[in-house]
Amino acid sequence: MTYRAGVVGAAGFAGIELVRLLSRHPKFDLAAATSDALAGTPIAKAYPAFTGVTDLAFSTHEDTDFAAFDVVFLAVPHKAAMGLAPALIEAGVTVIDLSADFRLKDPAVYEQWYAPHTATDLLAQAAFGLPELTGDELAAAAARRAAGEAVLVGCAGCYPTATSLAAAPAIRAGLVDAAAPVVADAISGVTGAGKKATERTHYCFANENLEAYGVGTHRHTPEIEQILGLEGRLVFTPHLAPLNRGLLSTVTLPPAPGVKAPTTEELVEIYRDFYAESPLVSVMDAGVQPRTASVAGTVRAQVGVAAHPTGMIVATGAIDNLGKGAAGQAVQCANIVFGMPETTGLEEIADPV
Amino acid sequence: MTYRAGVVGAAGFAGIELVRLLSRHPKFDLAAATSDALAGTPIAKAYPAFTGVTDLAFSTHEDTDFAAFDVVFLAVPHKAAMGLAPALIEAGVTVIDLSADFRLKDPAVYEQWYAPHTATDLLAQAAFGLPELTGDELAAAAARRAAGEAVLVGCAGCYPTATSLAAAPAIRAGLVDAAAPVVADAISGVTGAGKKATERTHYCFANENLEAYGVGTHRHTPEIEQILGLEGRLVFTPHLAPLNRGLLSTVTLPPAPGVKAPTTEELVEIYRDFYAESPLVSVMDAGVQPRTASVAGTVRAQVGVAAHPTGMIVATGAIDNLGKGAAGQAVQCANIVFGMPETTGLEEIADPV
Amino acid sequence: MTYRAGVVGAAGFAGIELVRLLSRHPKFDLAAATSDALAGTPIAKAYPAFTGVTDLAFSTHEDTDFAAFDVVFLAVPHKAAMGLAPALIEAGVTVIDLSADFRLKDPAVYEQWYAPHTATDLLAQAAFGLPELTGDELAAAAARRAAGEAVLVGCAGCYPTATSLAAAPAIRAGLVDAAAPVVADAISGVTGAGKKATERTHYCFANENLEAYGVGTHRHTPEIEQILGLEGRLVFTPHLAPLNRGLLSTVTLPPAPGVKAPTTEELVEIYRDFYAESPLVSVMDAGVQPRTASVAGTVRAQVGVAAHPTGMIVATGAIDNLGKGAAGQAVQCANIVFGMPETTGLEEIADPV
Amino acid sequence: MTYRAGVVGAAGFAGIELVRLLSRHPKFDLAAATSDALAGTPIAKAYPAFTGVTDLAFSTHEDTDFAAFDVVFLAVPHKAAMGLAPALIEAGVTVIDLSADFRLKDPAVYEQWYAPHTATDLLAQAAFGLPELTGDELAAAAARRAAGEAVLVGCAGCYPTATSLAAAPAIRAGLVDAAAPVVADAISGVTGAGKKATERTHYCFANENLEAYGVGTHRHTPEIEQILGLEGRLVFTPHLAPLNRGLLSTVTLPPAPGVKAPTTEELVEIYRDFYAESPLVSVMDAGVQPRTASVAGTVRAQVGVAAHPTGMIVATGAIDNLGKGAAGQAVQCANIVFGMPETTGLEEIADPV
Repeated sequence: MTYRAGVVGAAGFAGIELVRLLSRHPKFDLAAATSDALAGTPIAKAYPAFTGVTDLAFSTHEDTDFAAFDVVFLAVPHKAAMGLAPALIEAGVTVIDLSADFRLKDPAVYEQWYAPHTATDLLAQAAFGLPELTGDELAAAAARRAAGEAVLVGCAGCYPTATSLAAAPAIRAGLVDAAAPVVADAISGVTGAGKKATERTHYCFANENLEAYGVGTHRHTPEIEQILGLEGRLVFTPHLAPLNRGLLSTVTLPPAPGVKAPTTEELVEIYRDFYAESPLVSVMDAGVQPRTASVAGTVRAQVGVAAHPTGMIVATGAIDNLGKGAAGQAVQCANIVFGMPETTGLEEIADPV
Repeated sequence: MTYRAGVVGAAGFAGIELVRLLSRHPKFDLAAATSDALAGTPIAKAYPAFTGVTDLAFSTHEDTDFAAFDVVFLAVPHKAAMGLAPALIEAGVTVIDLSADFRLKDPAVYEQWYAPHTATDLLAQAAFGLPELTGDELAAAAARRAAGEAVLVGCAGCYPTATSLAAAPAIRAGLVDAAAPVVADAISGVTGAGKKATERTHYCFANENLEAYGVGTHRHTPEIEQILGLEGRLVFTPHLAPLNRGLLSTVTLPPAPGVKAPTTEELVEIYRDFYAESPLVSVMDAGVQPRTASVAGTVRAQVGVAAHPTGMIVATGAIDNLGKGAAGQAVQCANIVFGMPETTGLEEIADPV
Repeated sequence: MTYRAGVVGAAGFAGIELVRLLSRHPKFDLAAATSDALAGTPIAKAYPAFTGVTDLAFSTHEDTDFAAFDVVFLAVPHKAAMGLAPALIEAGVTVIDLSADFRLKDPAVYEQWYAPHTATDLLAQAAFGLPELTGDELAAAAARRAAGEAVLVGCAGCYPTATSLAAAPAIRAGLVDAAAPVVADAISGVTGAGKKATERTHYCFANENLEAYGVGTHRHTPEIEQILGLEGRLVFTPHLAPLNRGLLSTVTLPPAPGVKAPTTEELVEIYRDFYAESPLVSVMDAGVQPRTASVAGTVRAQVGVAAHPTGMIVATGAIDNLGKGAAGQAVQCANIVFGMPETTGLEEIADPV
Repeated sequence: MTYRAGVVGAAGFAGIELVRLLSRHPKFDLAAATSDALAGTPIAKAYPAFTGVTDLAFSTHEDTDFAAFDVVFLAVPHKAAMGLAPALIEAGVTVIDLSADFRLKDPAVYEQWYAPHTATDLLAQAAFGLPELTGDELAAAAARRAAGEAVLVGCAGCYPTATSLAAAPAIRAGLVDAAAPVVADAISGVTGAGKKATERTHYCFANENLEAYGVGTHRHTPEIEQILGLEGRLVFTPHLAPLNRGLLSTVTLPPAPGVKAPTTEELVEIYRDFYAESPLVSVMDAGVQPRTASVAGTVRAQVGVAAHPTGMIVATGAIDNLGKGAAGQAVQCANIVFGMPETTGLEEIADPV
């Protein structure tokens, strides 16, 4: 048995990565990939990696009969997703949303960072899609879906995914000061800036350059704070570096007062226990750091952790921002919600070089 | 039914790509990956892309009982392969060789470019592995293997593959002057220079640089001449550019005298007919050029062709030098020799961005 | 004594490189940098490399009193330059044009590739700006300028510069067949595609990719043919590679019938004699190939030449497409026209790494 | 009047950048460039950027009569410099050392991170070379040199330079908690890893990758702590990114208790006052972040600063690790010590693209 799947907003970077993953998925049949801007254009013409792979063309959202679908992935901009999701859910279609619209549990926080939320009912029932940390929410959604209900998953963003995978085991083990600030400095490849051709994404400006951006203002801040319970304590600074895919988050965590500081080896052990049931997250040996190249093109994550001489814990998380940070994680969530092993169709291994 | 497969020289770039491809192949079971230099080292330690994927460690060639294998891929340097192949064939193991040792039909030519050939008997029976152009040889080898014989395939090199895929349809259609010189200018990514850390492969020297090399002396010259029947007429100049994977060959072909020059559209038609049965080669629309990024990480190839105002034919071929140019093509050849669809285990789609 | 200089179209890539070079030139005082789109914007805001270097802002063309200038560099698009030049010359201002408008001697050829020429009088008196090959034209212009006349230089394009520097010594020495086709395959960095943010210049599409473009249709074709006397015989194929600055042209030249083929060492000697008076062009030792990284950021050029076993001559030219291929060469031409040593203000050495 | 200058260890990346800068310096005459490994090799052969620029060859240290020099730059590894400096000082030669050997004021700290110090007398009199922060030490050294004494400067390292330029103005203004930890996450280009060809510097491993390294163990930690007065409070994590030149340090500074938190605009003002006399450091406008590309190839630095909603101060410093982070800063220090304007010979502007 297979499921009929569609991608809305398929011409963007996360959307087209969904198309790639679903093109080879054994259980999800990609039946529609919409893009209002490119409707009618063969996917292979817009993205020549699909030459000889598929004859599918982009369609419009309007012309697609989504009621006949089992699952729809929304890879549309923030604010657009909350406009589309209600009708789909209404029609009995499970929705996996990659935007920010269903990530923040508190509509007031959403409004503060984005706009007034227009689908708060749905928001209340959305599962947060970061399987290694929100397995319970996704399991509950899977149970509801198995019972015939259309469910909604709001998938975690790229920075929140890498940062939370790095920090959560230490925080949940009670090793981190619950009052002190946490610093997360993260670096992203340029696919994170999206498909739009701008000065920022011009090859000649992005190449051979490093820069911070969105200092103190990046919208992933409340999401990370929500996942990790860091309300008002997160100093998150994203950076741009010259590569296509890859996101590395380095998190410096203050030690919980009165708790004996673990060694690096003990931290690795704690982290490995934490991720023992998570096939897509690898905790590196003590002294070994994650490499984004080792997870590029995949949904895998690598996490490193070290005890710093100051007593701080330095944890690092490496993902592909389009893979575990977007499309790959969305498929992982869909797998779970549809009762499949979470790695179904996601077994790719990164190019070793 | 699956086949027991081994990779000899698995720690090099072509070798480790074989490990990657065979790790997920449905019919070949990767049972050994040898590297005398790294014997005992877990593959995932040397190449962290395999972290969480495999626990296999590199073994020595000596300690591996290859007689129990169905197929062995040789990813060793030129001259080493002809030392290893005879014993394997003798032991009934089919050998897929990625080196130059069994590519050149004439031992005298091999000696001129490399060294005296020490396994000329095997050379005489080796099939040349470039499936789209040597299907007959590979079909014959498959028949022999099906009859219980161990067979040997000498896979085409990276530059010969891209260059020949671009030029062969025009040449075989009689459109090319059989006496005039043919110019092939090709550009390769740095994985083509191999794993050894040298000044040439140092990031800071390769990055932001373009250069030609091996002008008039590159060892792939006789191989291209052999495939295309260009003895003494090929001017082949390779170049190095700053990227990991990708090889583009631009071939300028003089028109056959007295033959009406086809238009670009007619050329595209001729090329598409030529590759009609080749699922891994795509011929681009008239006016569209191949992109190496669109085949990176895969065994696919893209070919473009244009009628030049001067009457010359300009054909371009894009491959991943480690994919269609090495490991991917080796697996493709093995698939054929073992009677499977040639794309088995090779369905990957390049990252669209 | 210094000269008052202006740059028109200063916000483009060639224009801003002119601003950089003129900012430190000992004899040309940069007094205006125009950009209608960015008028009023400080240069340092648009191009932060100028932070702390200059307070100059872009001005509009209209608001700039060019009559008070000694020299104006036109870094505007093709077709715009021939609209601006006449008034400047009329006003007694020497014009160094970086566009194609005053390169092609024959207005009919210009019309065929661009548009009807609207300043054919000026075209007839324009000097062609590629000093190593057109020293006479530039010397004559310098003499006219010294006599009080405003003169016009149409500077060579990037591909023509690299290709001609590589090919001219062999051709002018009579070593090249005057009837056979010449193949020039050239590779450019992405600054060659200009400042406009497009899909083509998007980091994620240009990075890790190689492709040919403009096969048989690139507008630099007639210019190269004009310089080298190759009318209708040039097969020129440009390629794009992932780097900012750098252009390498590999030219394959058929030997003149009846002429004894020189060895590589003899060719190097011939080339070195040819460039003996050209301080900015270096001919590499036999067996050594030019590297674009070694001239990046400068107006220097490196040329390599080799005798190919087939009898062909393979010559390579490496430049910075914005340096010797555009702004640097324009300043070199201006230096000559104003009677200075051609290297004045152009002594930069490329980053060795 | 000019000064006779030599570079010891000239074949490494910092050494060859010194050669580049001194080749065009108006007051320092580069008279010797030593490299025991490459002695006798023309510089232009090892680093082809010098083709056509200089005929100088590398010499051995032994064969060079340094007593006849005014200044020698030591670009040798840590521990080697303290072996060479005493004899040079003894001979009356001023020494500008780029290694770590004369940076740490306390020999015990040096011993803890490197080895027992063998020239503690010299260490006591060495000036610390980071002109914007240690102007007094350098002025004193200049006075001593003017009085006929040979002086020694231990130049700051690359990470300490960028990190300290970013953090010092806030710390010295009393805005930072003197007891809380400071987090510095820095990113470097690959030239920072040096000339040695290793797996780490192999193009194919460094390209398209991000990783942290030396977590909790990097030797620049005590140097940053010394400059900023952060003993035992610095959490410094360096990262490697795929570019040649560029280093960005992002420093998160806890606010001093009881001090009214300045706005970003106020911080910018404080920083601009701090660097008012420093022509090579630019403080970016509020909301604008430094770009390493904008200082690449130069000795300039860009600094950004922002007030974070949490009350923390986030400061960023961008330099070229070989420029302001090594060779450029060494020449800047030498300029000061020899009584010249600090920017002498260092006026280069980064490539705007």
